[in-house]
Amino acid sequence: MRMVDLIEKKKSGKELTKEEIHYIIDGYVKEEIPDYQMSAFMMAVYFQGMTSLETAHLTYAMMQSGDVLDLSKIKGIKVDKHSTGGVGDKTSLAVGPIVAACGVPVAKMSGRGLGHTGGTLDKLESIPGFKVNISEEAFIDQVNDIKLAIIGQTRALDPADKKMYALRDVTGTVNSIPLIASSIMSKKLAAGADAILLDVKYGDGAFMKTTADAKVLAETMIAIGKHLGKNTKATISNMNQPLGYAIGNALEVIEAINTLKGQGPEDFTTLCKEEAETMLLMAKAASSREEARAKVEDAISSGQALAAFKAMVKAQGGDETYIDHPEKFPKANYQIEIPARESGYVEDLEALRLGLVSMKLGGGRARKDDVIDHQVGLVLHKKIGDHVEKSESLATVHCNVPLNDALKEDIYKAYHITSEPVTKPQLIEGTLE
Amino acid sequence: MRMVDLIEKKKSGKELTKEEIHYIIDGYVKEEIPDYQMSAFMMAVYFQGMTSLETAHLTYAMMQSGDVLDLSKIKGIKVDKHSTGGVGDKTSLAVGPIVAACGVPVAKMSGRGLGHTGGTLDKLESIPGFKVNISEEAFIDQVNDIKLAIIGQTRALDPADKKMYALRDVTGTVNSIPLIASSIMSKKLAAGADAILLDVKYGDGAFMKTTADAKVLAETMIAIGKHLGKNTKATISNMNQPLGYAIGNALEVIEAINTLKGQGPEDFTTLCKEEAETMLLMAKAASSREEARAKVEDAISSGQALAAFKAMVKAQGGDETYIDHPEKFPKANYQIEIPARESGYVEDLEALRLGLVSMKLGGGRARKDDVIDHQVGLVLHKKIGDHVEKSESLATVHCNVPLNDALKEDIYKAYHITSEPVTKPQLIEGTLE
Repeated sequence: MRMVDLIEKKKSGKELTKEEIHYIIDGYVKEEIPDYQMSAFMMAVYFQGMTSLETAHLTYAMMQSGDVLDLSKIKGIKVDKHSTGGVGDKTSLAVGPIVAACGVPVAKMSGRGLGHTGGTLDKLESIPGFKVNISEEAFIDQVNDIKLAIIGQTRALDPADKKMYALRDVTGTVNSIPLIASSIMSKKLAAGADAILLDVKYGDGAFMKTTADAKVLAETMIAIGKHLGKNTKATISNMNQPLGYAIGNALEVIEAINTLKGQGPEDFTTLCKEEAETMLLMAKAASSREEARAKVEDAISSGQALAAFKAMVKAQGGDETYIDHPEKFPKANYQIEIPARESGYVEDLEALRLGLVSMKLGGGRARKDDVIDHQVGLVLHKKIGDHVEKSESLATVHCNVPLNDALKEDIYKAYHITSEPVTKPQLIEGTLE
Repeated sequence: MRMVDLIEKKKSGKELTKEEIHYIIDGYVKEEIPDYQMSAFMMAVYFQGMTSLETAHLTYAMMQSGDVLDLSKIKGIKVDKHSTGGVGDKTSLAVGPIVAACGVPVAKMSGRGLGHTGGTLDKLESIPGFKVNISEEAFIDQVNDIKLAIIGQTRALDPADKKMYALRDVTGTVNSIPLIASSIMSKKLAAGADAILLDVKYGDGAFMKTTADAKVLAETMIAIGKHLGKNTKATISNMNQPLGYAIGNALEVIEAINTLKGQGPEDFTTLCKEEAETMLLMAKAASSREEARAKVEDAISSGQALAAFKAMVKAQGGDETYIDHPEKFPKANYQIEIPARESGYVEDLEALRLGLVSMKLGGGRARKDDVIDHQVGLVLHKKIGDHVEKSESLATVHCNVPLNDALKEDIYKAYHITSEPVTKPQLIEGTLE
């Protein structure tokens, strides 16, 4: 087998066999296949696509390129959750505790953020003392004990994905559906999931810009799950404005805590409940959507969901008093209001622009080795469809240095105000399976 | 400017500017742009193509990547000729002397072959003593003196092409019209041509398989010429069977000598005359096709074309007595006839298959450092449309080791015999400008 022939085969639109795909991935990880052949191959994949069978073979080969976690010592069906990412997306912080409170194990390996906002690990590290690097054994024990753990990667999972992603990033081959789908799914499978719930977001603040693209990506990943015998579902949700009101690490943790208390923003709460319900169904902890909904409502209203979060914080070395007293989170030096310049209705609220403001305040990483400032970020007061009076505050900016004019103007640019009433957008497009 | 953005731009089908293309080529030659970005870029070019303006900019950037020969010390319009290559293609050996005999300077830098047959330099080296490595000064003097010189490259011409070609070869990006066209044209321009005649071949033994593809390639190169102010024309010719009867280095030199004496194969003679006439027109040594034709006929019938070839051989250190006495060329150890297994008409004669037989006999290079055996090859006796009696010889194989059965069968496979009469194919499709 020669890599150049496999490039030609894909280039001419033919379907690669399982053996051919394994030859490519194994050879690439072993550095027998050079970057310059891999990048040409991935560009050919961008143009010619892959069948669902090819994508499944690719996913499996990538998963097998490194260690695969064995979570069999954890009792029950382990449902992992993955969001394709967005602005203000603190879903894992709330959904994990809700599901755990319903008795379903949540053993989550999460990542750090690169780009506009921090990742789940960065957010958790806002809580003083919280440790994300704990041993695999302790991780498994913790999940068996309190049903919930969210940690960083313990081993070299999916090295093929790391190498391919770094190459895609510099060769214009990021936005290929089969490459995105196999990247996500191979990581989730390597992390030992029995079943996978995907939150595929579309819109200005998401990687997929349209509902149609998000659906194609979701269907591609569901098909991979089918081929590989892993139950996979996907919620399609709107990321044309930030999720909830808070953007920034500690600010988002506080919002998640409020949500676990039943006092969260409407949109974020709705999404968390929908995902928690679906996870209960996938874990066979409920036999109908109604039953799942009742369990989720109960977990929140009884305080058990919040208790699960607190238990995790304690188990991972964090100061759990912060959970009962979120006012303990240290505030940034400045809280600056952004008064509306005119009255009207919020017509559009550019999620990506606001995410970048938060990053520039220090809340995200432009480069891999940037240090996150957990205190900074934005708390929105108005979202799409809301009425605003002139001078009323659109948002509060939390920053540790005085807010510069350019960032302030960016926030104004993100808010599109119109005189006509605006309908609130639908958050959840549906769940595909 | 970032290479990844230019890859994305080409990937999305947009036209690159002159500055962007120069950034790519300069950066690649200076090794500031790595192979893995260049291969992804070239795959994007394969799928999205290039406009004729982009292709011209690419050609110019490639030409400028190294030395550009200055042939201004040679009097007259220097017309270079380039064939896209085929089996039995010894055209330069005959056309060069004919044109020179008509008083038009032919200062040709040629290449070695890789693949089924030797290149022009390999063929010339069949003549004992013939030197292809002579200084640039001696080269110019020789052309001013006797109007004709064919030598190897003296300088680092077009390093961009060398680097890009090596990369294309292993990344499935060889068969892209803009990349092929810019590769050919940049080399010809770097070699100092004032005007360029291209012989674009199509068919089984050629790189372009169909007339349509050959025309697109020809038109692309003519457009490059127009953009860069170099008069460029292209003859489209058929390579569905070998050109002439001889395949193999010394065997082809002998056929070229016979052609210069007016005793060459009909098809090969026709092509040489057509190309020589076009070159005279391009060099303004004739004002009409009729006048050019008369000059060409005269050069051959007067013996001046043969004399020009002999003068070049002498000037470049070769034994010119071989030209008058081709029987002096040492014969291979074996001459083996291939008797027809049935009577009929030759319907098809697979050029590529025969080229590969010649290579396997030692007449071409499978690898860059293989040594050419000048004696071996094939002399065909029957071509498409010819009638053959059972047991009559189809071809004579010249080999230095006994002919193995597999190669013999390959020759039979190349000859398709039918019982119905077959029309001879048209050799020249036309000349585009």
